[in-house]
Amino acid sequence: MKITYLFGFILLMNTVFAQKEDSIQIASIYKNALNSTIAHKNLNYLCKNYSERLCGSENAEKAILWGKEAMQKLGFDTVYLQKTMVKHWVREKNEICNISSTKLGQFNANVIALGESVGTSGNGIEANVIEISSFEELKKLGREKIAGKIVFFNFKMNNDYFMTFHAYGDAAGYRVHGASEAAKYDAKAVIIRSLSLISSKNPHTGIMRYDEEINKIPAVAISTIDADSLSTWLKNDNNLQIYLKTNTKFLPETLSYNVIGEIRGEKTPEKIITVGGHLDSWDNCEGAHDDGVGCMHAMEVGRIFKDLNIKPSNTIRTVLFMDEETNQRGGKSYAEETKSKNETIIAALESDAGGFTPQGFSIDGNESQLQKLQTWKPLFEPYGLFFKKGWGGVDIHPLKEQGVPLIGLIIDSQRYFDYQHSSTDVFEAVNRRQMQLGSGSLASLIYLIDKYGL
Amino acid sequence: MKITYLFGFILLMNTVFAQKEDSIQIASIYKNALNSTIAHKNLNYLCKNYSERLCGSENAEKAILWGKEAMQKLGFDTVYLQKTMVKHWVREKNEICNISSTKLGQFNANVIALGESVGTSGNGIEANVIEISSFEELKKLGREKIAGKIVFFNFKMNNDYFMTFHAYGDAAGYRVHGASEAAKYDAKAVIIRSLSLISSKNPHTGIMRYDEEINKIPAVAISTIDADSLSTWLKNDNNLQIYLKTNTKFLPETLSYNVIGEIRGEKTPEKIITVGGHLDSWDNCEGAHDDGVGCMHAMEVGRIFKDLNIKPSNTIRTVLFMDEETNQRGGKSYAEETKSKNETIIAALESDAGGFTPQGFSIDGNESQLQKLQTWKPLFEPYGLFFKKGWGGVDIHPLKEQGVPLIGLIIDSQRYFDYQHSSTDVFEAVNRRQMQLGSGSLASLIYLIDKYGL
Repeated sequence: MKITYLFGFILLMNTVFAQKEDSIQIASIYKNALNSTIAHKNLNYLCKNYSERLCGSENAEKAILWGKEAMQKLGFDTVYLQKTMVKHWVREKNEICNISSTKLGQFNANVIALGESVGTSGNGIEANVIEISSFEELKKLGREKIAGKIVFFNFKMNNDYFMTFHAYGDAAGYRVHGASEAAKYDAKAVIIRSLSLISSKNPHTGIMRYDEEINKIPAVAISTIDADSLSTWLKNDNNLQIYLKTNTKFLPETLSYNVIGEIRGEKTPEKIITVGGHLDSWDNCEGAHDDGVGCMHAMEVGRIFKDLNIKPSNTIRTVLFMDEETNQRGGKSYAEETKSKNETIIAALESDAGGFTPQGFSIDGNESQLQKLQTWKPLFEPYGLFFKKGWGGVDIHPLKEQGVPLIGLIIDSQRYFDYQHSSTDVFEAVNRRQMQLGSGSLASLIYLIDKYGL
Repeated sequence: MKITYLFGFILLMNTVFAQKEDSIQIASIYKNALNSTIAHKNLNYLCKNYSERLCGSENAEKAILWGKEAMQKLGFDTVYLQKTMVKHWVREKNEICNISSTKLGQFNANVIALGESVGTSGNGIEANVIEISSFEELKKLGREKIAGKIVFFNFKMNNDYFMTFHAYGDAAGYRVHGASEAAKYDAKAVIIRSLSLISSKNPHTGIMRYDEEINKIPAVAISTIDADSLSTWLKNDNNLQIYLKTNTKFLPETLSYNVIGEIRGEKTPEKIITVGGHLDSWDNCEGAHDDGVGCMHAMEVGRIFKDLNIKPSNTIRTVLFMDEETNQRGGKSYAEETKSKNETIIAALESDAGGFTPQGFSIDGNESQLQKLQTWKPLFEPYGLFFKKGWGGVDIHPLKEQGVPLIGLIIDSQRYFDYQHSSTDVFEAVNRRQMQLGSGSLASLIYLIDKYGL
């Protein structure tokens, strides 16, 4: 055997042994995750005690203190709060949307104000309603047909896609921009079909944005069942009246925090792997799938490392971000601080796609980083995971300009929009094992990134 | 260019074009499945009108007639019933399991008789209870400790596995054989921890078998929460008394049916691709995940072919099997008839693993068949599916001796045992899109098998 062959053979065998060793370590990580009930109990506690954690709210602040204490109990080496100023929008519950027809009678539809939308005046708004299925149609109808009316955007999420986030991407524009687009033609208010793929009586809220140049009009989401009823009624009576009443306002901006826990690196503690979810939620739910689970995933990475006595070379930093839902102030503050401190972030990982069975990782990075992940594919095949190029995450996105590779946990998305931003997003909708597969997946990938770099 | 190269190039390009064409057809199949609500409505109807479809029961017979009519409405070319004799075991509901302690008080545990178990005498059984975690422990304790007692098998399903069916495989032995094993040492009855990975108050039933040489004693499953409570109480009082009362019996064997629908092949109608689920369910649930969904999957293959005007070369035969849960008489009758008629079954596919997101296919066949499936892997990557060697299915298994390749649809198993054989297995637990991904997966694979053989 030539010496170069021998050398090659040794290298190859080293790789084989390393993969074997890594495969054993990863199996023990998954085993630990699947057998632990701690994150499930923590999620239960968070959801039941500090539901409706919209940034700036009392419950958000309580959740922050709880998160700090919880990470201390889990044995993180350092736990601290990182300041971030947040907006503080509040909504009076039990919005009214009464639909009445001289021909058909009347019914109350379930609606919820969209995040950061203005309310109606104290007396509410009464007006005719017009159904619109696209911005093109809105434009075509123009001021003549729209002025003085309530615009009902009945854009249905598209069932064609395998990944439901693509359907969400198509539809979210109506929720985010519908009010200002309709206000261009002097609409009085907008009602948006909830972003969900199921028939349900529960409306789904979410952030909206006003064009500052245009008159701000109230915006609500209507449940999909009520959207279908409203559409049916409109086919039978195009003179329908709607009475809409919502009450929202901004309180002064308030000081809030990201919650950070670190497992200190043994060799190069100044180099950091960030993993996070967001602690805030909408104000109509427990925020279990969105994104209590992501917080649990990120906390579990630390717990599992401690429990299995895995001593990382680099610092593993778990971040419970504040304010993903409205203005991403937590994510921005985090990126600003890493930049001002000139920190080296090896990679940033995020979980914000629910607590269902994980399917893989998407990387927002360069080709060689994707290639490196692909070499680890065999290690994740027993757990059904794949790697692909794609989106990292909302909270870690501000790190991109520092050149940090961003990695998102891809989770089975089929049921996500059954729950997201609606009152059904509760602890009971999360299955412990499915959630813990996500914990194991993140901990395993971080174990490899820590060992081999990215 | 040498002529052989040219020939090779043409072959290669043919393959490329074929894959492109197949990819488009498969996309249209999934699109059709994901947009259709028919199967979801059919599942709703089946579950709400003909729940508790244990073989031999009135509801099973009604479901058979409904299944026939439903397939006729879907446009199958031929629909018929195939005779099969079935056992007819019945259970009086509201079994009693009262646990009492002179020290701790008493509580009623939720139990359910295991399938085909004998009942207690009319007055019930009262006895001390002993907790056992394995057959080894039972043997070690022997007659001295066991005789006259109720044996409580508290074997917990193992969380270590990624696929929960492996944990089920480990634990099912206690449910199936626990009674006869305990009766060897003169136990009076057995209580089995329900086969589920969650904490729940709902007991999960399932088939059990007696060793005909050994005295038959009553067997029940206890909910996992009550199993934990019983175990805790036993630690504090090893003199616990249990009063157990169940009432079961066999009625005479009865004539039942598999329901069969065919889409006639255009070229070789005498060659058949079989796809099936089972129509029977346990007598405590709606049988939605187990296996109403499998029936819908199998029916959807025909509906999708008709709707997209896909004209198969071979006959596509959908079978709603009777009696998977107890004695698999339907599957056996089907195999007997294909054999006696000397039919050519190209492949048999089965869906009996719930209505969650599909993950792939497992083939019980030879290496070249697995290789052939693997060449189609790129076509299924957009839908996250893999192929592997493995189990085909209970109902199609009798076809194995005729050399038929058997293919099982692999479905995300994390939540399956939350529902299986318990009262929570209802229509509402099934998500339309997840179920329809299974329909699209089966229809796509059958499209390829029909076109290229296996």
